Amino acid sequence: MGNSFGSLFRISTFGESHGPAIGVVIDGCPSGLPLEEAPIQQELDRRRPGQSHLTTQRQEADRVEILSGLFDGKTTGQPLALLIRNQDQRSKDYSHIATSYRPSHADYTYQAKWGHRDYRGGGRSSARETAARVAAGAVAKQLLQHWGIGVQAWVSAVGELELEIPYQQLDLSLTDTNPVRCPEPAMAQRMANYIDTIRKERDTVGGIVSAVITGAPAGLGEPAFGKLHAQLGAAMLGINAVKGFEYGSGFAGIRQRGSQHNDLFYTDDKGQVRTRTNQSGGIQGGISNGEDIYFRVAFKPVATIMQDQDSVNEAGQAVTVSGRGRHDPCVVPRAVPIVEAMAALVLADACLLQRTARL
Amino acid sequence: MGNSFGSLFRISTFGESHGPAIGVVIDGCPSGLPLEEAPIQQELDRRRPGQSHLTTQRQEADRVEILSGLFDGKTTGQPLALLIRNQDQRSKDYSHIATSYRPSHADYTYQAKWGHRDYRGGGRSSARETAARVAAGAVAKQLLQHWGIGVQAWVSAVGELELEIPYQQLDLSLTDTNPVRCPEPAMAQRMANYIDTIRKERDTVGGIVSAVITGAPAGLGEPAFGKLHAQLGAAMLGINAVKGFEYGSGFAGIRQRGSQHNDLFYTDDKGQVRTRTNQSGGIQGGISNGEDIYFRVAFKPVATIMQDQDSVNEAGQAVTVSGRGRHDPCVVPRAVPIVEAMAALVLADACLLQRTARL
Amino acid sequence: MGNSFGSLFRISTFGESHGPAIGVVIDGCPSGLPLEEAPIQQELDRRRPGQSHLTTQRQEADRVEILSGLFDGKTTGQPLALLIRNQDQRSKDYSHIATSYRPSHADYTYQAKWGHRDYRGGGRSSARETAARVAAGAVAKQLLQHWGIGVQAWVSAVGELELEIPYQQLDLSLTDTNPVRCPEPAMAQRMANYIDTIRKERDTVGGIVSAVITGAPAGLGEPAFGKLHAQLGAAMLGINAVKGFEYGSGFAGIRQRGSQHNDLFYTDDKGQVRTRTNQSGGIQGGISNGEDIYFRVAFKPVATIMQDQDSVNEAGQAVTVSGRGRHDPCVVPRAVPIVEAMAALVLADACLLQRTARL
Amino acid sequence: MGNSFGSLFRISTFGESHGPAIGVVIDGCPSGLPLEEAPIQQELDRRRPGQSHLTTQRQEADRVEILSGLFDGKTTGQPLALLIRNQDQRSKDYSHIATSYRPSHADYTYQAKWGHRDYRGGGRSSARETAARVAAGAVAKQLLQHWGIGVQAWVSAVGELELEIPYQQLDLSLTDTNPVRCPEPAMAQRMANYIDTIRKERDTVGGIVSAVITGAPAGLGEPAFGKLHAQLGAAMLGINAVKGFEYGSGFAGIRQRGSQHNDLFYTDDKGQVRTRTNQSGGIQGGISNGEDIYFRVAFKPVATIMQDQDSVNEAGQAVTVSGRGRHDPCVVPRAVPIVEAMAALVLADACLLQRTARL
Repeated sequence: MGNSFGSLFRISTFGESHGPAIGVVIDGCPSGLPLEEAPIQQELDRRRPGQSHLTTQRQEADRVEILSGLFDGKTTGQPLALLIRNQDQRSKDYSHIATSYRPSHADYTYQAKWGHRDYRGGGRSSARETAARVAAGAVAKQLLQHWGIGVQAWVSAVGELELEIPYQQLDLSLTDTNPVRCPEPAMAQRMANYIDTIRKERDTVGGIVSAVITGAPAGLGEPAFGKLHAQLGAAMLGINAVKGFEYGSGFAGIRQRGSQHNDLFYTDDKGQVRTRTNQSGGIQGGISNGEDIYFRVAFKPVATIMQDQDSVNEAGQAVTVSGRGRHDPCVVPRAVPIVEAMAALVLADACLLQRTARL
Repeated sequence: MGNSFGSLFRISTFGESHGPAIGVVIDGCPSGLPLEEAPIQQELDRRRPGQSHLTTQRQEADRVEILSGLFDGKTTGQPLALLIRNQDQRSKDYSHIATSYRPSHADYTYQAKWGHRDYRGGGRSSARETAARVAAGAVAKQLLQHWGIGVQAWVSAVGELELEIPYQQLDLSLTDTNPVRCPEPAMAQRMANYIDTIRKERDTVGGIVSAVITGAPAGLGEPAFGKLHAQLGAAMLGINAVKGFEYGSGFAGIRQRGSQHNDLFYTDDKGQVRTRTNQSGGIQGGISNGEDIYFRVAFKPVATIMQDQDSVNEAGQAVTVSGRGRHDPCVVPRAVPIVEAMAALVLADACLLQRTARL
Repeated sequence: MGNSFGSLFRISTFGESHGPAIGVVIDGCPSGLPLEEAPIQQELDRRRPGQSHLTTQRQEADRVEILSGLFDGKTTGQPLALLIRNQDQRSKDYSHIATSYRPSHADYTYQAKWGHRDYRGGGRSSARETAARVAAGAVAKQLLQHWGIGVQAWVSAVGELELEIPYQQLDLSLTDTNPVRCPEPAMAQRMANYIDTIRKERDTVGGIVSAVITGAPAGLGEPAFGKLHAQLGAAMLGINAVKGFEYGSGFAGIRQRGSQHNDLFYTDDKGQVRTRTNQSGGIQGGISNGEDIYFRVAFKPVATIMQDQDSVNEAGQAVTVSGRGRHDPCVVPRAVPIVEAMAALVLADACLLQRTARL
Repeated sequence: MGNSFGSLFRISTFGESHGPAIGVVIDGCPSGLPLEEAPIQQELDRRRPGQSHLTTQRQEADRVEILSGLFDGKTTGQPLALLIRNQDQRSKDYSHIATSYRPSHADYTYQAKWGHRDYRGGGRSSARETAARVAAGAVAKQLLQHWGIGVQAWVSAVGELELEIPYQQLDLSLTDTNPVRCPEPAMAQRMANYIDTIRKERDTVGGIVSAVITGAPAGLGEPAFGKLHAQLGAAMLGINAVKGFEYGSGFAGIRQRGSQHNDLFYTDDKGQVRTRTNQSGGIQGGISNGEDIYFRVAFKPVATIMQDQDSVNEAGQAVTVSGRGRHDPCVVPRAVPIVEAMAALVLADACLLQRTARL
């Protein structure tokens, strides 16, 4: 359990950080979708390590191979299997933690749960697994694009540096023009400098990724437990290092009064029912209302720091764990494509489910 | 889809606010659990409307009837069906919104999705449905109690009034001694006064429910998409009016450095591996580590206010919607048992899954 | 697990033979379907005990109550909960088997699995649970009818009496004109006499229910494990007392050669691709081909006989178990509506899934 | 949907007959199981084409590669991905049917469902996909072996040649000593001759695979829709070319009376509750009773015959389809390991589920 996501557009990922390969099987992608490797590769390149000095120096080409489900350039409705071979596995870097637990990593809990773990780079608990999600998400994005739905994420906070501008005033096309993936150039530069300082201090810092889904029609999502924002929340909280999720007015909204917070309906020029504000974040009663779907995801500081830390080993003895290996000082720049991928997967699933709602 | 929750301890709820009944079928409760109606009824009474002047005056006895799955006072391993008849359905109170959309309710989105809706009291989108969850959660709680696991929630914020004391210093046994369900009596009084003021202004306000799960062993939760906090998050975000979820250090944690944020391991007197701090909120890599599981849930201000608001009707024409019916000025006091119920359901499921993890 | 069936049109049944009630929650029925209690009641009446001297004399009105999911006479897309109260529970009839295992019943295996069981009338293992399936199936039938799909089952064998006529030559409208539910009147009479003889001998006998689904479009079913006949087979094998399932040419087909067995394609007057024969039973590669879907279901002789039988009790001691209670000498007449119900559920699910197959 | 099987021990297969590879992801295999490639390869070799003149001459090494989930020779509880590259793809052999429908194949139905298909060798509808099942089943077998459960299948009928001896009197260790996989040497020879004759006539024939599961404890299986034999039936009916499934007394049992058919309980020397006969096939009320689990699976004659047949093309025009490619004259010898694999998967799943049944 836990390695699959989605109901009708369903993915199952596999693979460990230092095993032969990682990959994903996508079941439920409708037939007839023109699909190429290039856009998948492009998304993988956005997540790929070694993109700048702000990210880990592990070198992985992350070449994707499509093993099934495609014929004459179009999906057949059969499972799409995407494979990415691991290459730059310096597993020896991890022999020092073979029996020790790195603080705030999954070493201890994986050992506690399964009694046997692949300690190399965290094994399956490594964020390397998210490459498989990004590959699957790239397929979902192509499907959504066909339906006129777009998904865009960006870095809105790094440590105490927070972008205060409402997202509607940002030029999101600038997101990928800088290594931080913050669409406001001046803030992006400050964030880059900040991360670099942290890195030199052999430390790490957290941040926030914000995201908006545009073009989603009203009616997506399920009642009760299947609310669209509950699915988005589950998707985001499943990403490594995530500590919180909020949508629309989020945590700040609790301080408002109902009379301020309610989004009043009106009919626009085209006869479309709209809301004057969007505290709802595009979702009401768990179902999309046709406005922008907006949410924010909090990422903790990366657990691996280049410092000595107290810990214990499998025998319960006190040990010192020293940060080694190749790690990111701040995870949010590389998390942007992951957030987009997971959001795209949720939306693709919701769109397919919506086809079955009415007689 | 969307009306079931859980994998091995799985519930399916049904029913509308103004239909004949609401209820829940629980599938997967292990056999042999002594089960009585009284503790279920007790939880329902905590959620029940009409408890104080701070909550809606709808009168519902919320009497639960166990229809199946129980024999000689013990569960049989067969589905438990729990039924609650609706009684105080003043459906006429809703005729004025039969074709109008209440702002920030699910009226518009349900119509957009299904093309046909039960408008009486919001139909299935009403928080009345959560009574079924509370009943199911009460069963899960009894199961967890058997395994030494406790779940406690409390109100930690109402509007701008926020309890700043670390939860470890609170006496949670005081939670139910006041109608707000805040375990700090002085703050509870301030919150009560505040809610009362808001109510008199015919307005509403949001708040935060915090929760702690004690006694959970290390090893609960699944990898990748099934992380324990992702399941808790999905559970909480599925509750009506919830806008955000965070666990451990949450959104505030992003500002910390890794060197501050990491929870260092040590071995305690009993030879148990522990962490010195708990920024992880009891969950590392998605799996419980044996510490307290701690999280917070943000609730928006209730959408129904006793004021006139601009809106549109099904024909897209401008209308004025006037708040009527019986509603809560602040949802968090009654949300406490719902948060506990959902948390209990997640934990029960995780405990059963854990039995299958190892050879 | 095991108490739910279907993926998109999904039912969950609950209840025991001698508990307060049995029922079913249907999740995924599309909104907008006109639904009435009468046709559901009609199907329940076909399955109801006490219809003739050929069936058990237990008296159950089997009155169905729709608790949710219906508004203004149409489905809302929300879960439909259907409740049937038990009435004629002579639970005392079962005190003699409280600790003994009836041969070829589920008494021993339920005890072995759960360690605690409701022995009254077999508890949940009783065929009484199938009333809930019939109720749900009646909803599915109404949905299928809307889509032009019909499901008809009939008794084609009782013991050694077997209807040899190809089903295409039967007048299936005669099925319900006799208590055996065999559409060939002369054979129906012979079967009735035979069952009556068996009953007088305080014994039981098995039989076969055949079924045909008409009007199903090509394209229903899923690949690999989700083949339409695999789903039909699972549905049928889940019915009490079923020992075998075959479709199209079935077991007899193994003796044929490929050159005889293959169904040759041609294009009919209307330009529709058809097959000249239908050994495939309307399903090729697991997907419907537009021809009649045809299958057969084998039912064993009812385990409860009005004779003394050797057995053991919970302590492992030898005991004599005497048939008491009210039971059917042959289950197939009452199985006809159950087979139809399960087939309808499979088809409804397949039709909804088919909506998601293509871009 | 349809490409996954199982609930707790869950497999997802992917791949087409003439694509780059086929494979399977196994999720839910408990950690700590010693696992090697050799026994998986051994099972694949049993299913592999080109084993004798009785089977297709396609040459596939079917080399399995384990991509994940294994560390230091033991499973980690993480998904096991198994990959098999396709090698001998003579896709040109299929250009003649690019737009024509082969009789009794899935060509027409796949086109009808998805509107776009990989026609090369039937694409995903090819029995080549079952290699992935056999690989997964080999893992399940190793797990079951650890628990003392064995699964054995054999050919019991080819065309009209049927093994009449009760399986208890067969020496199943002889099954793999001949290319037909019939454990009775004389009959095996007759069957081999028969298949060879059929092959020379450029025709095909069907058959039956029987199977027995030994060592399964009482208590496996789920109630209602999840009956163990329903799961076995679904598993078997999901195998290519299967037309029927029966267990225990099966179709023949309908002719018996209850007084003959019932399996009487007794307590054996070791104090174990047993049944004197096994018409139940080891399953009562859907739950295993500790006796041998026994079932039979009917396979139709292979659809591809080396003869000209009438058919139509995508445009609906009459065409002649000529058998080409490399095909089996009778599928049952190679079906034996597939039946075993699917049975092992069902049992592994049932064993894990059983761990959650009781408090």
